[in-house]
Amino acid sequence: MPSLAEINALPADDFVLTLGGVFEHSPWVAEAVEGRRPFVSIDALHAAMNAVVTASPLSRKLELIRAHPDLAGRLARLGQLTTESAREQASAGLADADESTIARIGELNSAYLATFGFPFIICARLNKVDAILDSMQVRLHNDADAEVATALSEIGKITFLRLKDLIPD
Amino acid sequence: MPSLAEINALPADDFVLTLGGVFEHSPWVAEAVEGRRPFVSIDALHAAMNAVVTASPLSRKLELIRAHPDLAGRLARLGQLTTESAREQASAGLADADESTIARIGELNSAYLATFGFPFIICARLNKVDAILDSMQVRLHNDADAEVATALSEIGKITFLRLKDLIPD
Repeated sequence: MPSLAEINALPADDFVLTLGGVFEHSPWVAEAVEGRRPFVSIDALHAAMNAVVTASPLSRKLELIRAHPDLAGRLARLGQLTTESAREQASAGLADADESTIARIGELNSAYLATFGFPFIICARLNKVDAILDSMQVRLHNDADAEVATALSEIGKITFLRLKDLIPD
Repeated sequence: MPSLAEINALPADDFVLTLGGVFEHSPWVAEAVEGRRPFVSIDALHAAMNAVVTASPLSRKLELIRAHPDLAGRLARLGQLTTESAREQASAGLADADESTIARIGELNSAYLATFGFPFIICARLNKVDAILDSMQVRLHNDADAEVATALSEIGKITFLRLKDLIPD
């Protein structure tokens, strides 16, 4: 794993290659902070990346949210998740969930997507399957603005944990 | 420490008393999510509170940011920090920093406040004194929109760690 000092010293292209997957399928976030190096801590790097998202227009935020896979969805069954997503979903217990749980999550995913137009996002590493199921049911009743904000808050946690994995302290 | 189940069952006033200090001097955040109980995980509670802030108007966001004390500032010397802030600043090493470091932080705090109109916010538990000093120097050169976004991102981390301290897993 590259140290923060090494990441600060990478050529711009390599910086984006290395950190481009931290925000799911959204290398534009890494691109936007590349020129702001050096970062003095993982936290500072994350805050800068997160701030790029927060300051982006709603259309960009929705694009980022929609870049995430469904939980326990078709891509997972086909083995087509990004490495990070696969590991995160497994840590919540989704890889070992029984068929009826997977089916129930699928129904709630579909209802959520139909309601809001984007997939349900949760930091799977901070929530086990039961908490995820309960959250889906509760969040289905929120309004769209609250769900955009909640999805971005969850993405903030997902990406912080990804950066901490990627870069040793 | 109250469990999440206990927090979900508290009378509304007690819920706000218990969680009102998670967002510094800003019990309106806890008030806004009180009626959305039960929360299924600490993460879900935090995401809901954070989403209230994200969805609030800029004036409210600035009020929240301005509710935070200066790092290693006058309130710390007078022993008038909230318990949480005092502990967080100590964990960064600020309580034991030498006089010249404290003076340098004071200068940067003043420059930051004069530039942006709000205090410099950083998650002290995720950054040691040297990283804080470097971050202050770098962030002084950001634009105001980026600094509002960065401050809110840092407040997201501060408050998540506070909730994890307050509520056992």
